Amino acid sequence: MEFPLLTPEFKDEYRRRLRRIRRAMEARDLDALLIGASANIYYITGGVCRGYFYIPLEDAEPIFFTIPPSASSSPLDVSIRKPEMIPGELKNRGYKTPKRIGLEYDDLYYSEVKRLAALFADSEISNGSDAMRAARLVKTECEISKMKVDGLKQSAVYSRIKHCFKEDMTDVEFQIEIERILRLEGCLGYLRAAGSRMEINLGSVLVGPNADVPSPYDFSMGGAGTDPSLPVGASGVIMKPGMTVMVDMNGGFNGYQTDMTRCWAIGEVPAKVRAAHECSIMILRDLEEFCRPGVVIGDMYRRAARMAADAGLADYFMGHQHKVAFIGHGVGIELNELPVVMERNKNTLEEGMTIALEPKFVFPKVGAVGVENTYAVRDSGLENLTAHPEDLQNFL
Amino acid sequence: MEFPLLTPEFKDEYRRRLRRIRRAMEARDLDALLIGASANIYYITGGVCRGYFYIPLEDAEPIFFTIPPSASSSPLDVSIRKPEMIPGELKNRGYKTPKRIGLEYDDLYYSEVKRLAALFADSEISNGSDAMRAARLVKTECEISKMKVDGLKQSAVYSRIKHCFKEDMTDVEFQIEIERILRLEGCLGYLRAAGSRMEINLGSVLVGPNADVPSPYDFSMGGAGTDPSLPVGASGVIMKPGMTVMVDMNGGFNGYQTDMTRCWAIGEVPAKVRAAHECSIMILRDLEEFCRPGVVIGDMYRRAARMAADAGLADYFMGHQHKVAFIGHGVGIELNELPVVMERNKNTLEEGMTIALEPKFVFPKVGAVGVENTYAVRDSGLENLTAHPEDLQNFL
Repeated sequence: MEFPLLTPEFKDEYRRRLRRIRRAMEARDLDALLIGASANIYYITGGVCRGYFYIPLEDAEPIFFTIPPSASSSPLDVSIRKPEMIPGELKNRGYKTPKRIGLEYDDLYYSEVKRLAALFADSEISNGSDAMRAARLVKTECEISKMKVDGLKQSAVYSRIKHCFKEDMTDVEFQIEIERILRLEGCLGYLRAAGSRMEINLGSVLVGPNADVPSPYDFSMGGAGTDPSLPVGASGVIMKPGMTVMVDMNGGFNGYQTDMTRCWAIGEVPAKVRAAHECSIMILRDLEEFCRPGVVIGDMYRRAARMAADAGLADYFMGHQHKVAFIGHGVGIELNELPVVMERNKNTLEEGMTIALEPKFVFPKVGAVGVENTYAVRDSGLENLTAHPEDLQNFL
Repeated sequence: MEFPLLTPEFKDEYRRRLRRIRRAMEARDLDALLIGASANIYYITGGVCRGYFYIPLEDAEPIFFTIPPSASSSPLDVSIRKPEMIPGELKNRGYKTPKRIGLEYDDLYYSEVKRLAALFADSEISNGSDAMRAARLVKTECEISKMKVDGLKQSAVYSRIKHCFKEDMTDVEFQIEIERILRLEGCLGYLRAAGSRMEINLGSVLVGPNADVPSPYDFSMGGAGTDPSLPVGASGVIMKPGMTVMVDMNGGFNGYQTDMTRCWAIGEVPAKVRAAHECSIMILRDLEEFCRPGVVIGDMYRRAARMAADAGLADYFMGHQHKVAFIGHGVGIELNELPVVMERNKNTLEEGMTIALEPKFVFPKVGAVGVENTYAVRDSGLENLTAHPEDLQNFL
């Protein structure tokens, strides 16, 4: 497998992404950026590598400081044994000392940032994670096309979920069969997410009353899990008539992710629960109609919350015992990117953002319902990357 | 699921672990420690929680600052909305300002440590990750008994691996069947590891020439993976006669892990490769004989390397194209704990350490061989927590 950086296929894309990063650096007065976190290295180089990517704002090419056994074999490569060699290598090549350099405050551990900061004692040190998040906020067409492929594969897996169910199995057994199909379809089996409170396996299956159990993790939904060491998701509930089944299992087939939720009812469930599922679909239709570049993101949240309240469902919207304050989030290389679709977000939608919208409802005894799709923001509106039947289907 | 902290079953264990942490704090001149990383929170509380655990060295009880929706319902709980409330809550309860407080430099992102450090402006800030690693270095009997259970389950899964193989399947398809069995046996499906370069799914299957492909991640073995976004492990190789199959799939059933590797040959493989597998077993027998509390850890590495060299296998030992400098590592809550069994480690073994030993050999065309067991260090020697047939069995 050739390292993608500067292969003919990736070359133009690399230039586009580099321009995006430099624009974000300029807006933050950074005249250099040094990145090392996997998600950011992957964004700029197309691969994951041991090492650091140094980006000067102007006048000079970036340098890819690779640490063996890694090497990208690109003309940008400079092999180093340890980061302490970076300043000397920069000086040898005539790079000036940056006035202000960005390091990944939100993506690297404290000790690593401290170690890197010590290499730039004559520079002001600033948060480079912000610049990278801003650069990655709007996707290139190449990124969106990877997400489209991911969504198609995820949809193919979801088509087979009905065959995973057998009466009286546990939610965990059910989830395991979905995991197997995901993996056989090509899911890489690792969910890349930002932040330290995102431990989970390949996603979440919530059945019956377990949907209303809060979790310490920063996901939209909870679940007790099966062990106190990983208190999230499926908990060993026996899948019984009268319960709903929410499947929010990860895509992740090609370095990009799409986020997608569909729900099933086991036998009869209350009319109110079915109505809530319909309300979720209506909220998505409304937002698909409403969203355009320029729309204030907080308004998306407000419209959704108002529709839920108008339907008399406010008590169940985005959780019952514990509610989360967002109805969606950016998605791409990581599951949780910008923007966060919450009330106080005053930013506006931009063409090329990719956003998962997940208006969901939790009923304490029955379970969770609602639909989640991942959309690309287009000039003409939202393009659904996870098109797939949305209605509440039945297992029994 | 009740939060374990201060349940009758966990109460004594909590006291034991607290004593271990305080001893490590004392040795590092820390008069307070504030921890928030999942693995450390799990160690001291028995669960994962949103919040921070504050440990004064003396005179006062710890405080568990929980952030909703988390709550442990223990008498130590103080509910806060954000960490900025911690100093006031400490003051209200008469806790003195620490002279020197430890924060998790190696377990939390830079921005989080910086935010926490700002709350203790009158204290010296120091690395608390070291103290927690030192506390967790030697396991309690309770921890070892959890690891024993984990090892038994992992062994049960490994007994079924022979049924996962079908001729001409890919390494990925083979791995997926193992993952399914692991999950059905109760594996939680999330591999908890320290450090930012430990992205992987549930472990590694290396078949044939893919075993010699270096990876940027800090694992003992490599593999190309199937996508540049996760370049590690199985790569889609068709499993053919003449190749070896190394299975190093995660335990992880109860918050603790055991690390275990077994290998298979598909049809005939060269005598040298079989001999290397035997050499790995002989190295383990030798180390089982040699290791006692007080043994210098670097000597373990030297004995193993010497045995490999004496057998004429130095070129293949711990990698071929890329070699790693260790033959083992601590294991427990995280896959990669202290100690690291490498040549320059001058520390000595202590009763209660749990260590995975993995003398392995990589042959460029054939694949990898070798055995990995997880051991508890006892006064009388090593206790194998992953006892299971070790010989190189055949798939065909």
